[in-house]
This record gives sequence, structure tokens and C-alpha cells, in this order.
Amino acid sequence: MINVAILGFGVVGSGVGEVIVMNNEKLAKSLGDGIAVKYIFDKREFEGTPWQKLVVHDIDIIMNDPDVNVVVECMGGAHPAYEFSLQAIKKGKSVVTSNKEVVAKFGHELLSAARENGVGYMFEASVGGGTPVIRPLVKCLVANEIDSVCGILNGTTNYILTMMNKYSESFESALSAAQEKGYAERDPSDDINGIDTCRKICILADIAFGYGMDSTTVYAEGITAIRNKDVALAEKLDSSIKLLGRAKRVGDRISVMVAPFIVSSERVISGIDDVFNAVAINGNAVGEVTLCGRGAGKLPTASAMVADIVDVAKNGGLNVSWCSPDETPDGILLTPDQVEDKYYVAFATHDASAVEEQMDVKILSQDASEIAVETPKMPYGELKNKLSALEAKEIKAVSVIRIF
Amino acid sequence: MINVAILGFGVVGSGVGEVIVMNNEKLAKSLGDGIAVKYIFDKREFEGTPWQKLVVHDIDIIMNDPDVNVVVECMGGAHPAYEFSLQAIKKGKSVVTSNKEVVAKFGHELLSAARENGVGYMFEASVGGGTPVIRPLVKCLVANEIDSVCGILNGTTNYILTMMNKYSESFESALSAAQEKGYAERDPSDDINGIDTCRKICILADIAFGYGMDSTTVYAEGITAIRNKDVALAEKLDSSIKLLGRAKRVGDRISVMVAPFIVSSERVISGIDDVFNAVAINGNAVGEVTLCGRGAGKLPTASAMVADIVDVAKNGGLNVSWCSPDETPDGILLTPDQVEDKYYVAFATHDASAVEEQMDVKILSQDASEIAVETPKMPYGELKNKLSALEAKEIKAVSVIRIF
Repeated sequence: MINVAILGFGVVGSGVGEVIVMNNEKLAKSLGDGIAVKYIFDKREFEGTPWQKLVVHDIDIIMNDPDVNVVVECMGGAHPAYEFSLQAIKKGKSVVTSNKEVVAKFGHELLSAARENGVGYMFEASVGGGTPVIRPLVKCLVANEIDSVCGILNGTTNYILTMMNKYSESFESALSAAQEKGYAERDPSDDINGIDTCRKICILADIAFGYGMDSTTVYAEGITAIRNKDVALAEKLDSSIKLLGRAKRVGDRISVMVAPFIVSSERVISGIDDVFNAVAINGNAVGEVTLCGRGAGKLPTASAMVADIVDVAKNGGLNVSWCSPDETPDGILLTPDQVEDKYYVAFATHDASAVEEQMDVKILSQDASEIAVETPKMPYGELKNKLSALEAKEIKAVSVIRIF
Repeated sequence: MINVAILGFGVVGSGVGEVIVMNNEKLAKSLGDGIAVKYIFDKREFEGTPWQKLVVHDIDIIMNDPDVNVVVECMGGAHPAYEFSLQAIKKGKSVVTSNKEVVAKFGHELLSAARENGVGYMFEASVGGGTPVIRPLVKCLVANEIDSVCGILNGTTNYILTMMNKYSESFESALSAAQEKGYAERDPSDDINGIDTCRKICILADIAFGYGMDSTTVYAEGITAIRNKDVALAEKLDSSIKLLGRAKRVGDRISVMVAPFIVSSERVISGIDDVFNAVAINGNAVGEVTLCGRGAGKLPTASAMVADIVDVAKNGGLNVSWCSPDETPDGILLTPDQVEDKYYVAFATHDASAVEEQMDVKILSQDASEIAVETPKMPYGELKNKLSALEAKEIKAVSVIRIF
């Protein structure tokens, strides 16, 4: 019997319990052994539910019980989730988590500790929710040098952008709707400012390139500056605006960043709407592989975590194959100003000639108050210089969005 | 050192050799051990290439060499690929294959033999080419009861349908183009008649539901009857026509079939064009997960096979987790006539009233020579009866396509 202790029995934690009960027969068949929840660590009591008798408030009961094989960490926040995870690993228990903050900050340390102790540290659910991303990247595409990983990694912002696109809702009302539906936190700043996406793309970049990425220093732009006018123009161009995390090789350097992009409908991720996530991975043998699914939610996230439980129960530490990062060479990461893209820029002017003097642009639309253009590919720093030069002539850029 | 013998050094086999050489450093790092091709079994000599010195014409050299850990079977055809695979397994070697014919016919037997001999039998490349499908289904979605697996599993037919859609090419000229580009065989009948898709959906159905499916008895309809008029109408309805393999639970029974479907652009697979494959999997916890990528081609297919090599090299037989099929209960599989769908039907008539008398249809289009309708959901057998009744009144259905 595989005995599981669940730390934090909120939405995701209780989902893990639910999936283990709901699909117990299938799991036992796949694993050749049963899975049972032995403990729930939470402040609450869950009175009147079948879970009540499993609740403990003293973490040491779990840590000191040799029958607990797997600790499922669904606490959220860096502390004490990190400390509990490390303690469990040192006690010879595998740890499964959905906590992207802990993985982004302490993933390498916890993986090393897991390797030393012959147990697993698994975190499929930390990126993409129920969408398989980490295991496909690590396992299915192992034969590839990864050229890029790019995707919609945050369901809240994708929902907001979808509402702005499909129903012409304002950013504010779309955000309120997301909060009402439980897709967005009361404080949505980590989502709408790109911080959540940034943690996830850093985890994927670590795995793809083998360097440690510090998500607190990686460039992240959110969606708060996106206007309905921009969304409508993208639609007219048979494209959509998506908040993307993007990690790619550029020569012998690497670019990792988060920003909204205008994505042509030719690309699968352009049509991934609502709270769905999608990740496009380019490998030097396989070409492009795209993985789509629910990026959050109780049962989808639990689906990923229970798969991790089965994996560590079957293979223990054997399957931990995220390579330790190489020493990250100084300057391997391009600065935001060095990264080249094409840009959509809207200027508050009706006179195209001054803009055309500055850049060889393609006019996308023009009305009494604004001109929207597509620029050639250039480093972001160069674009900023050109925009400053135009601003000095009182031609102000009111919107700048990268083109994917 | 992991020593690999490649049986059949055609497009896919030589791709495996190429990927092992091209990404040797990455592979060694992921595996913690080197991978080398030790033998190539082929009739040809590959004179003047670096492979020449590895060529053997006697299979026993490979079978009797204890240093060969993994046999990569890329021979195509059922025999002697099956016999060689079984022999290798009995000699304690893991086998990796892209051969869907062998997997569909002998997969269960070879998996059992692999389990008995403590080695692996892996076949990720047999479905979806480079697209990860089998490993995600077996591993990533292990916590789910699978409700359905449905997808575009044949690149040749998807290419033909894309050409008919995007460039209004006729079926015949699209097929010729596919042959010229090397996407279609000289004898394309297995592709265009749905046989190839049928083998693949049966493999996926086996894994998803745990019953053995006989691909030779499963209903398979190809794309030869699709007319440009149908394709154009689908486009007008914001949909596209895709040849799908579909396996799904219907109550306590199962439906497995292959047919062209009209797929709304709301669904990810509707936009998957050219030789790309896509599989949508529905699980009772995760909801829908869609996996897209290159369904064929030298390096994409090799990408999947080399991932399998790494997996068996790391985990030997440990990772073989396709459950042995349960005894397949008589009558678990719905007959084609029992399966319910909505249908698009085009009638060679300009008089809608007779059709409307027979069925409660929605008129999709109408011109001087044809009426196209959408029917309510009904068993295929019932539709056939209604169409016979109409034919008796000289109202002939000229096209019938299921709606997804």
C-alpha cells in the first residue's frame, strides 16, 4: 500500500484526495498496489466529512511515520512548504508538489536532496496544471536539443484576454468576472503582472537548457496595458493576443521572458482560449510539439499530482531526470533590450510620415486618432530608442506589443 | 554504454542513427551513460557512409551479442519484424519499434514476453510519429479513467484534406502531391482507406480501456468519398473535415471507429493541418488534453524512438505499464450501426420537403442540384434506414459525413 500524506487540504489538496478515491481501482491496476490517503495536514478539521479522521496538526506525526511513502505538498507559498518538503525528503519520503513558487526558488536544491536520499521530487502540476508539460519535456523529448519552449502558462490572464476578445469586455470587467468564477485571486497581481507565468517559464527554461534561471530577475510584462482596441485589431489581423512565457536559444545565448504577444491563427496556441494552457516546444529532431489542457482547477491539477504519486511509487528516485543545472555562465541570458522581435506599435497620431521616417514600418490600421504599425525585427533596446526619438517629436506610442 | 542494433535502415532507422549521433552529448547527460549504434541489420551495404562498417546481414550476430541492450525495429510489415522482436526479447534485449502493424497485431503478446523477460517493449513512435501520445496516455494521465481518445493519426490523409481545403485541389491531385512529397506511399490504400488510422486508434483504445481491439474488424471509413463541395461547405460552417480515429466509452460499452468528421473550429484538432497529427484525450479528472506534433518524418519519428531507447536503458522492464488487457467481454464493442452521431448529409435534390418529412433536419445549404442538411443525433443504422427510405423516393444521399 502506498500511503500518502497531503499537506494543505484546500482546492488542490482535496482534489488529490478526491481523485485517489474516485479512481482507486484504475490506480491500483496501473500501480499493482493500492494508494491511500493516510494523513491530512491542515489547520481546519473538515468536520462531518470522511477526511476528518485523517487530519493532523503536528507535522512530525507525518515525518516520523515510516509508512508514509509520499508527501503531497499543496500548501502554497514558499514557507513552510519548502522546509516541510526538504524534511520529508531527508526522512526518505518522495515529495509531489504543485507549488511553482517553491519549485522556482528551491527546485534544484530539493531535487539534489531527493537524488541523495533516493526518493523523488516531482512537480508536473507546477506548470500547466493538468496539462502534461514537464514529463513530456523531460521524457518524451529527451532525444532533442530544445530550441524553444513557449506558451500560455496562466489561465487567469488567458481567460481575461479571451473575454476582451470574444465579448469586447474591458480589462476591469473581465478581471472581475475571473474573480467571481474563482479563476483569479482576490489579489490578482501575480497573475496579471506576469509573475506567475514567469515562475513557470523559468522552471521550463531550467529543464530545457540546463541552466538555473532566477525568476525574480527575468523580464516579465503583464497584460494590464492591453487595450480593447489592440485586441480588436489583432482579431482583424486573424490573430489573438496571448500572454506568453518564452524561453529560446539565440545563437549560444538564451532569452527568457514574459510578455503579451500577438499570435497568428496559423499557430495552435493562438486558438487556445479561456482558462486553457498550451505549451509549444521546439526540438531539433521532433520539430514543434504542442500540449494543451486545463491550466488550473481542482481535478485537472490533482490529475497531474496523482500521476506524479504513481510515478514515484513505481520508480522512487529512479525517474528524477531533470539534470542538475550546469554552472550558469555569466551573461548567457540576453538582457530584455537585446532580444529581437517584431512589434505592433500604436501611435497617438494621424500622421504616418514621421513614424515612417524613423522606421521601415508596415501600416496595419489608421484612424483619426491613431496609427498602428508593424515594425521590422529589431532589439527591444533599439525600438525604445526609436520610440523616444518619436516622443521627442510629440508622437507618442500608446501601445507596444510583440509579434510572435 | 548502451549498445543499440537497428533493424531496417530506411527513412526511420537511419533517422534513429542520425539523432543518436547528432544529440549524443545531450543523451549521455540525460542518461548518465553513452548510447552507440553497434549494428545495422539491412540488405543494403551503405557503402561510403560511416554506417557501412556496422552493417550485418545475419540477425543472429545481433541476437547472440550480449552487449546489445536495445533492438530498434524499423523494418515495417508484420514479418519477420514480429519474430525478430520476440527473439530479441527472449534474449533479454529491450525492443523499441515504430511498427504499428506489429504493435496492433502482436503488441499484447510482445508486452507479456517483455514483462516475463524483465525487458522493455516500447512503441511510442507507432502512434503520432514524433507527437508524444502513448507515454502521456500511460503515464501523465494514469490518474484518470479515460472517457475518450480521438485524433488525427495519419499525416498523409490530413495533408490531402488540407490541400483540398486551402487550395481547392481535387482529391486526386492532392494525393499526387502527397506522393511527390514522399508523404504518401506508391500504394496509398492503407492511408486513404483509414487502415493506418485504424491500427493506431486500436492501439490507443487498448491502452485507454484495457481491452484488446482487433483492428481488422473495427469499422474504418477513408476519405476517398469526400468531395470538394463538402470541404467548401465545412469551411463555410467555420469547420474542417478531418479523418479521425475515435475510441470512446458509451455507457458500459465502447465505440472504436475511423471516419471523416466535420470538426468545428472551436476544437483544437480542427486547425491541425498538413502532415501534423493531434490527439485529444478526455479523462474524468483532467478534462481534455490535446497533443499535437509531426505525425511522421525521419527525425520526428526518430525523436520518439530514441526517447524510448533512453527509457528502457534507464528503467529496463520497470516502465512497461500498459496493463495486460482484461478479457474482452463479448459485445463490449458497439457495432457501427449502434454508434450515435449527428451527420451532415448532401442530397441530390432541390426539394427539402421530402427530406424534412423523413427527419427533423437543419438545412445547411441549398442550390439548384443539392441540399445539405445536419441531422439530429441518431444511431448510424437508423440513419441508413432513413436514407434507404428516401432513396426509394429517388432522393439520393450523395455525401454522408459525421459531425464531431
